[in-house]
This record gives sequence, C-alpha cells and structure tokens, in this order.
Amino acid sequence: MPSLSNQEPSSSPSADRPVRVALLGFGTVGSGTYRMVKDNQEEIARKTGLAMEIVKIGIKDETKKRSLPSSLFTTDLDELVVSDEIDVVVELIGGEEPAAGLVEKALLAKKHVVTANKELIAKHGSRLITLAKDSGLDLHFEAAVGGGIPVVQPLKHQLAGNDVIKMMGILNGTTNYILTQMATHGADFADALAEAQQKGYAEADPTNDVDGIDTMYKTAILAAITFGKQVPLEQIHREGIRKVSYADIHAAQMLGYVIKLLGIVEETKEGVIMVRVHPALIPQTHQLASVNDVYNAIWLKGDFVGDLMFSGRGAGADPTASAVVGDLIDVARNIKMQGSGSAIPYGQDMPTSPIEELESRYYLRLTVEDTAGTLGQIATAFGRREVGLAAMEMRTKVGGLGEIVFLTHVCRELDFVQAIGEVGRLGCIVSVNNWLRVEG
Amino acid sequence: MPSLSNQEPSSSPSADRPVRVALLGFGTVGSGTYRMVKDNQEEIARKTGLAMEIVKIGIKDETKKRSLPSSLFTTDLDELVVSDEIDVVVELIGGEEPAAGLVEKALLAKKHVVTANKELIAKHGSRLITLAKDSGLDLHFEAAVGGGIPVVQPLKHQLAGNDVIKMMGILNGTTNYILTQMATHGADFADALAEAQQKGYAEADPTNDVDGIDTMYKTAILAAITFGKQVPLEQIHREGIRKVSYADIHAAQMLGYVIKLLGIVEETKEGVIMVRVHPALIPQTHQLASVNDVYNAIWLKGDFVGDLMFSGRGAGADPTASAVVGDLIDVARNIKMQGSGSAIPYGQDMPTSPIEELESRYYLRLTVEDTAGTLGQIATAFGRREVGLAAMEMRTKVGGLGEIVFLTHVCRELDFVQAIGEVGRLGCIVSVNNWLRVEG
Repeated sequence: MPSLSNQEPSSSPSADRPVRVALLGFGTVGSGTYRMVKDNQEEIARKTGLAMEIVKIGIKDETKKRSLPSSLFTTDLDELVVSDEIDVVVELIGGEEPAAGLVEKALLAKKHVVTANKELIAKHGSRLITLAKDSGLDLHFEAAVGGGIPVVQPLKHQLAGNDVIKMMGILNGTTNYILTQMATHGADFADALAEAQQKGYAEADPTNDVDGIDTMYKTAILAAITFGKQVPLEQIHREGIRKVSYADIHAAQMLGYVIKLLGIVEETKEGVIMVRVHPALIPQTHQLASVNDVYNAIWLKGDFVGDLMFSGRGAGADPTASAVVGDLIDVARNIKMQGSGSAIPYGQDMPTSPIEELESRYYLRLTVEDTAGTLGQIATAFGRREVGLAAMEMRTKVGGLGEIVFLTHVCRELDFVQAIGEVGRLGCIVSVNNWLRVEG
Repeated sequence: MPSLSNQEPSSSPSADRPVRVALLGFGTVGSGTYRMVKDNQEEIARKTGLAMEIVKIGIKDETKKRSLPSSLFTTDLDELVVSDEIDVVVELIGGEEPAAGLVEKALLAKKHVVTANKELIAKHGSRLITLAKDSGLDLHFEAAVGGGIPVVQPLKHQLAGNDVIKMMGILNGTTNYILTQMATHGADFADALAEAQQKGYAEADPTNDVDGIDTMYKTAILAAITFGKQVPLEQIHREGIRKVSYADIHAAQMLGYVIKLLGIVEETKEGVIMVRVHPALIPQTHQLASVNDVYNAIWLKGDFVGDLMFSGRGAGADPTASAVVGDLIDVARNIKMQGSGSAIPYGQDMPTSPIEELESRYYLRLTVEDTAGTLGQIATAFGRREVGLAAMEMRTKVGGLGEIVFLTHVCRELDFVQAIGEVGRLGCIVSVNNWLRVEG
C-alpha cells in the first residue's frame, strides 16, 4: 500500500481534478456509497459540474477479503483524515469513538465531512458544526436521520421560515417492523423480535433499537436543527417498545388506533421545548399510522406550511448511500461555488420541559374483578384527579375477571400517573397492565 | 409614492443592511409571504445570519384598499424589478406574461428571483435558469410544485445521486378534492365540482385544474429537474378528470383501487422518458391512495433511495408562502456565502416517448347485452390482440343489460386501444363507458 505521507500540496478541485473522497468504514453503507458514486458518475458530474472520486477507504481489518484493489484501502485512519490526497471525509464507522476524534481531526485538517452517524451528531453536533463553520467547511449528516429520506436539509432550508409547532417521527425501522408484525400476525413482542433478528432487521443485542436509544439520537438531531439547540440526552424522556403487548395493540385497534414508537419534539410553551421517545397510540386515520414495516416517516406541523410528511426507507445500504451521496454532491457544489461552511451553529438557549409537565390523552388497560361497583370505583378515582374519561371498552374474561380499556381526555401527566396509583390500590383491581400516551 | 429612480448604487447586504426583497403581486400568496417574513423575522435572521425586509410591493391596482402604508406599493413593475433598492424579486403574478418579461428583466438587472409560477418555469425554465446561472444569480421555484412540500430542492440536492426510475404526483388540490368527494359521498363529477367551487377550492372556470393543465406544468418541472431536460408541453400526454364518473370510482373500489389524477415521469427505456398526466387507478394499499382532499403528494422510486413519498398542502396562501420564504432564506444564505448561481441548467437532450408506446395495465367498463356468449366474444377479441385479462367484475342491470369491468395484464397501449375498438364493434356491446390506466 503506498504511503499517504509526502503528498503534493493540495490544490482546489477543478474541471481537471475531481473532488477526492475518503470513506471511513466499508460495511454495507460504505460499499453502497462506493457503488453509487461509481454507478452514477455521469449523473453526479452533470449535476455538480465536478467529477467525484473515492480515492481511499479506511478500514479496521486489512485481512478481510475484498473485491476492490488493496491499494484503495488503508488501516491508518488517523493519517487518512489529514492526508493531502483528499478533500472530503465520509465517516461511516458509527458510534462515538473513534468517530468523533477522527471527524474533529479531519475538520482541523480542513477536510469537509459527511457522516451518517446519529450518535456522533446527537452528542457532539453543536461543537463539530461550530468547528466546521469557523473553518469554512461543510459538515453534512442527512443520512443520520431517516436514512434516504431528505429531512435534515429540507428542515434547514425549505422549511426554515416556519415555526415548527410539533414534529413526530417513526425513526427506527427495526421497532416499526416488530410493531407491524405484532399487529398483523397477532404476535407477541418476543416472537416478533426473534423473527426480526432472523431476517437481519434486528441485531443480536437489540437494546439500541427496542429501547428507543437509536430513536432518541435521531429525535435529538431533529430537535437541534429545528430549535437551534443541542438537547442534552438526559433531558429526553425515553421508553422503548418492550412493554407493548399484543393485547395493547389489539385494544388500540378496537378503539381505532395503532401503536407506533415515536420521537416527538414540540414547543410546549413559548421558548420551552419537550423532547420525548415512547410508544404511543395514534389514530388509524393519521398519516403516520399507515407507515409500516421497516419504513420511516417524519411528520410535522409548521405555522405556515401546515402538516407535512416525508416517508421512505429509513435504513439499509442503498437508501443510506443515497443520502450520503446527496450530501457529497452538496459538498462538491459548494467547493465549486466556494460557498462552503454555510451551516448555522446551534446557538439557542432553550430550556426543556420534563415529561411530568406533559398534557396529553392516555390509554390504560386494567384487569379487574368482574363484580358490581367496579367501574364506579375506578371512574370515581379518576374523577377525583380531574382525569376525564373519553372512551372505554370492557370485556368479561373467564374466572370472574374482566378487562377494561380506557382512553382519557387531555390531562396533566402528573395527575394521570397519580390517578393510576390510586386506581391500582382499589380492591377490585387485579392488575394495571399497561398505559400509553395518545398522540395526533 | 417616492420614486425608485436615482437610488444610491447597490451595496452588498451585510450585518448592517438587510436583504431587500420586492414582491410582484399581493394576492393571497403575496400577503402570506409578507406576513411570514414579518412574523418569523428573528427565526430567519438566526438561520441566515442576515436580516430580510420586504421593501416594496408591485401591484396592478393602486386603488384597492390595503392595510399596509401606501408608500410600500408601486404600480411600476418594470421600474421595480431593475431598482437599485432591491436585491431579490419575488414573482407572484402567475401566468406567462407579464411574468416572464419581468423575471427576465430582473435577472438582466442582476436581481435574484424567487417565483411560485409553474407555467413560467414549465415554459421558460431552461432559458431563465441558464440566464440566472450565467449571471451568478439564484432563480428558485420551490413553490411552483407541491406548494409547501419541499420537493424541487430535495430532488436537486439530497436525491441528486439517484437515477429516478419513476415519479408519480398528485399535484393539483382541486382535482384531488373533487375525486375525494366523489369517492366518499358517491357524488358525480358535476356536483363535486360545484361544491368545490362553492368552497373556493375550484375557480369559476375550472379548466386549468380539471383538464390537467396545472398538473401538466408541475409534471413538466419535475421531469426537467430529474432528467435535466425541459420537456416541450406538446410532448406531454394530458387528460383531465371530466370523464371520470362515480361508476368508475365505485367499480375501482370493488377491485381494491382508488382513482387519482396523476402526473407521471419515467424513463421508459435507456435515455428516453415519457411524461403524462391522466386519471389512473392505483391500489388502495399504495401510499398515494390515502392522499385525500386538497393534499398533494409526490412519490418516487430511485435506484438507490428506493421508494419515497412527500405529502402536504399543495396550495393555499400559507403553505405556498412557506416555500417562497424557504427559497428567500436560501437566496439570503447564498448572498452571505457569495455562493449564488449554483443552478444546473437543463442541458440534456433526451427524446420523449409518445403515449402509444406505453406498456401498462388497463381498466375498462362496458355496458353489454345480458345474453349467452357475450363474455366469450369480448374475451376472444382481447385475446386476438394479445391483451390478457387479470380481473373481472360483472353485474346484471335492469332491462336485459349488464355491466362488465375488466382489469388487464400489462400490455401495449396501442394493442389495448385497438382491442377496445374491436370490442366496441361487437353486437353484444351497448357502450364502452370508460377506460383508464392502472398504476402502482
């Protein structure tokens, strides 16, 4: 492998010289990106006025068999990101380190950066964007949220004139696949997860997906772009889908709802935002309700644009490559127009509101003793806490038991939680099976 | 009104001096734009680093009562677009002239241009984009397609690395409202149109909407952006929705389909595109099928991104203003970064394919004499023309008549049309009521 040191000094990309790209990481997205740049070379040249070439690929394991010439690969990533041979670094390693260190190093060495790394941007976005901006460099991360769906840049550009009132996203394909399987086949969580793992949609350790961590990173990025503030992750309320059972999905269906894992950002009062990730009921008629399987979608309401939805494939080699190459095209255009570094750093100081302050509608599923007076006791307990009931389904089960499902009117989360506590202590209650928020 | 001549020479917008915008036209979109720039001034300054001010509004009728100071208005549009007092012209007059002349004049006077005018861009886009590019100016037209839905810029940027395989859009709110009303209330076209007119969704002369002209302009723009070629309008096959009856919508529903007016762009073979506008059946499970009322949506399939959909409000003062202001923000950013004029002119020479060469599935509704042998004669006639039948619904009507609905397999349009001709001449056929293409 030829050394990367002692290169000629960097010149600007021009008609004579292509934009030189280095990939860090050559997994599915890396090889998808390589293939897309190769396959659509002409298209890209026509749309940017510049040729683009992937000149080097940084990898960890040199011994793996690969179909490309070995001269294309290097294991010295630290040297690669500062090399005079390259103009743009595409970071596809994922995770916090070494990605964060390498991206910072690349920016300090005056390389533009494109990344698909949601954890990196959720945790270090503010600092890295400021660093890029101050150096007149581009730092793009369209692929970090919603895979191939254009949402990061449209929020920064075409929708930038709007005050975003509320944003809700189905941002994780694995959990959406699991919930869809549960709903269509009456499967329980464990079975649907096992099937998703078998199909390669879920990892052996599914924590990152099913506990909402992946969705949290993406929601944090959406919040940052929209409100100009990097939200500390500990200020994001997060619940995953492990507690959702088929009984909940079925009860929701009876009432005209579906259950989705949502990342939600909204301005709860002037200058205060709430960011949260949890499963929620949404009406079957809501646009997000028909986004199934591994598809992702971002729905938002802006003060001028009204409601808007983007949907598509949120993950996978090719859709993610589409977003990465879209970013590369923008980097190339900006190089040509000498307009790099137009990012807007997150400069807003906006407090976040804790989940206890949420005002929402709620779903509750109880198992009760099927005796006279049960419903009266429960309804009275809710009434005492100012929680109004909007809908109810009741079913007798074998063994003298009954199941009751409630939907409440809008109330304060604090009141609702306290009401559940009181209801749970009633003698007629066998178990409080689950409760969920209702959106839309 | 103060004269616009004899202004000081233009300086660049800076921290001290806002980007000065002139509006041409002050109808609903114009006043929406004015209000949005005012309401979201801080937001815009934060996101662009530049203040923005609407300094002048060009109008036709000086005598109309308006709530803004009269010094803001001028009726001399020709002078306004070349004035040293302004940096950007926002053209909201609509139609071909005087809009085209004014936009050209503005570009020649080194003004950036934002327009919501689909007819202008569909007819003169190629020339005007080249003119803007050559002068280092921005010419943006996000609002011309899909109202507030970001689609023009995402196609140019985030999706630019893709080969677009097919694109289908519900691009006209009026016709989508009419078709939705017909489907939900069993209304006929004339009644649904009358209701849309009453509600202000359709104009007194509805031709532009219901005959697909508006959709044609928007489809032409989508084709131009995607394939880099301005398609002559006479090469676009166009049919409106006047011929769609409730009987068709009902028959489609029985077979699991809905009827939508679609603008469709696809590469039918290597280097050849077909652009067409017509009502079509799409499966109830297709994402476009649930886009109802005045909502618009653009669905596309790219070689890497897979299938993707954008939906939202396609018209109205506020959503359109959202797109106009998004464009203004980009213009302002480019001014600040000195990166204006990055548009890619349409330089591709791509032949278009006529509708006769389409290969599609078809829907056909016939009234027949309810006698033995009828079905056999029809099916035989189709078989002779190599048109395979995929689904059929048959119903006896009063008076010895029957109605038959067919869906075909994929066949050549030419063969299908000839087969219908032959079928129509059969003695057992009372009338060929309608036929439509089937998509998705």
